[in-house]
Formats: sequence, C-alpha cells, structure tokens
Amino acid sequence: MELVAIVAGLALVEYFAFVILCGQARGRYGVAAPATTGHPVFERYFRVQANTVEQMVLFLPGLWLFAYYVSAPGAAGLGLVFVLGRALYARGYVQDPARRGPGFGLTLLANGALVAGGLVGALVAWL
Amino acid sequence: MELVAIVAGLALVEYFAFVILCGQARGRYGVAAPATTGHPVFERYFRVQANTVEQMVLFLPGLWLFAYYVSAPGAAGLGLVFVLGRALYARGYVQDPARRGPGFGLTLLANGALVAGGLVGALVAWL
Amino acid sequence: MELVAIVAGLALVEYFAFVILCGQARGRYGVAAPATTGHPVFERYFRVQANTVEQMVLFLPGLWLFAYYVSAPGAAGLGLVFVLGRALYARGYVQDPARRGPGFGLTLLANGALVAGGLVGALVAWL
Repeated sequence: MELVAIVAGLALVEYFAFVILCGQARGRYGVAAPATTGHPVFERYFRVQANTVEQMVLFLPGLWLFAYYVSAPGAAGLGLVFVLGRALYARGYVQDPARRGPGFGLTLLANGALVAGGLVGALVAWL
Repeated sequence: MELVAIVAGLALVEYFAFVILCGQARGRYGVAAPATTGHPVFERYFRVQANTVEQMVLFLPGLWLFAYYVSAPGAAGLGLVFVLGRALYARGYVQDPARRGPGFGLTLLANGALVAGGLVGALVAWL
Repeated sequence: MELVAIVAGLALVEYFAFVILCGQARGRYGVAAPATTGHPVFERYFRVQANTVEQMVLFLPGLWLFAYYVSAPGAAGLGLVFVLGRALYARGYVQDPARRGPGFGLTLLANGALVAGGLVGALVAWL
C-alpha cells in the first residue's frame, strides 16, 4: 500500500503546483479577487486548477477503493497514468484550450477504471 | 464496511455521470473552454457538477467518520439518502433551477448528519 | 488517531458553515442560480466556499498521509493551524478581498507541510 500512498502524494504535489501557478497567474494578469474571469490566460490556469479539483474528487477515493478491493499495484499504475495525464492536460490547456483533450481523456480513463473497478471489487467482496 | 464502500462507489459513479453530462452540454450548447458561462442550460449542468463537488468534499470524509465511529449500516443508509437526493437535485436543476431545492436539502441533511455524527463519535471515542 | 479524526471533523464543520453562509448570501444579495456572480459581496462568500473546496482536496488526504506515515499528533497540530487559518481567511475575505492573504498563507503552509511530509513519510516507509 506504500506505493499507492506515494502515487496519491505525487498527485497532491502536482495539484499543489497547479494552485501555486494559478495564484501567480492571478497576479501576473491582473485579475483581482473575487473575480475568476477577466484575462483569457488567467482563465486557463484557473480552469486547470478547477478541473483538477473536479477530477481529484474521483481520483483519491477511487484509488483507495481499487487498491483495497482489487489490486494495490494496479491502483498505483492507474494512479501514475492519472498523474502523467494531468501534466499533459495542464501543459496543453495553458498553450491552447483546444489542446486539453488528450490529457483530459487519459485522466478520465484512469478515474473511470479506478471508480468502476473499486465499486465492482466492493460488490464482489460483499456478495 | 463493504456496504459503505459500495455506497461510496455509487456516489462516485453518479458524480462521474454528472461530469460526462456537463462535458456533453459544453459541446451541445457551444460553450468553448475556458468559459463556464454563456448558455443558461450549460450553466445548469455545470452547476450540478460544481455543487456536487462542493458536497462530495463533505460526503466522503463524513461517510467514513460516521461509519468508523458511529455505525457502518447507519452511514450506508445516510449515504443512500445522499445518492438519491443528488439524483433528484440534478433532475430538478436541469429542468428549472428553482426546482433544485428538495434534492439539495436532502443531500445537505445527509451530509450534516454524517459530519456532525462522525465528529461527535470521534469525540466520544477520544474521551 | 482519534485526535486526527476530531480535527478532520472540525474542518468539515467549518466548511459546512461556509456552505450555509454562501447559500444565505445568495438569497440576501439576490443572485439567482445558476449564476455565481452579480453582487460583489456574494462573490466573496462564494469564493470563500470555493477556495476552501480547493484547499480541502489537499487537506484531508494530506492530513491522513501525515498522520499515518509521520506523526498523528503532528498531523492534528497542523490540522488545527489549517482550521484557524481558514477562519481568519473567511473573516478577512468577507471584510475585504485584499485582507485574505494571512489566512490563505497559513492554510497553504499547513497543507504544504501535510502533503510534503506525508509523501516523504510514505517514501521512507517504502524504501
């Protein structure tokens, strides 16, 4: 299970970096709080952060369910796909929102496998 | 505890469906990223997803605390109320934002009971 | 570990209060769903809630990793810093968005320590 915790920690550090990048973009592009719109490049950084929150809500519980009821090494592997997919997503999105697709798809696939696998594993354990 | 994991998995699958519905609505109503406004029906799907994130942050840790310190079957039951309340909320909101009240109230009640019960249970265990 | 669960419960109750305050502000300042902008004071309450979601995604898993792999009392202490920092943040932000800095900094420091410490602790346990 240590490997699963390490992958969870890597995903948290990656997300922490997105939070810092979004805060820096707020200053650089002059978007004063509480606004979250006003400069197209800031909005990209903001959506990278917000979309990662939207996906982390699936990722961390799905990772845990999959590790516990299906396979810890499998969870760690799917978790690495998520972490790499998110890096690709962030890089593509900041360059051009139209390029966010492949990274988004990778993370959604990893999350779908973790959540569906975790639910099926818990059902099998219960039956 | 398997029942609690199954209910957590159901809530994650439900939220996953809201993510997919929101992504489809972005295409259907022509709202290009990074915008999250621009078409009133897209905004309903977007807020269903965003509000569910806001509630999942309470739900999953509250479910776990309640299951561990109070009662696992009680947590599973309150969790099912959450899952059904969210379905009602999403259906009402997409029809008309004014109809989101009952489903929202159900999920907030379930979350309040899970979080308050879990905190009290942890306090009792510590004393 | 009970102390860690109590601190997690306190953070959840605090966030629950922000959700209620944001809902009340929506009524008081006349911002009809699905809009999340339209009145500057509502937007402060909305961002207090949204930013707390953004930080909770780091806080709860970081708290757990730190408690498990480093120190449970240390995690509880850093968790209390987070809870107090968030109260300061919310109070400052609602008065004036320019005053959100100190509370935000405290919570980000606590989260950084929890996440970095938890990842290092998991790496050490794995080696």
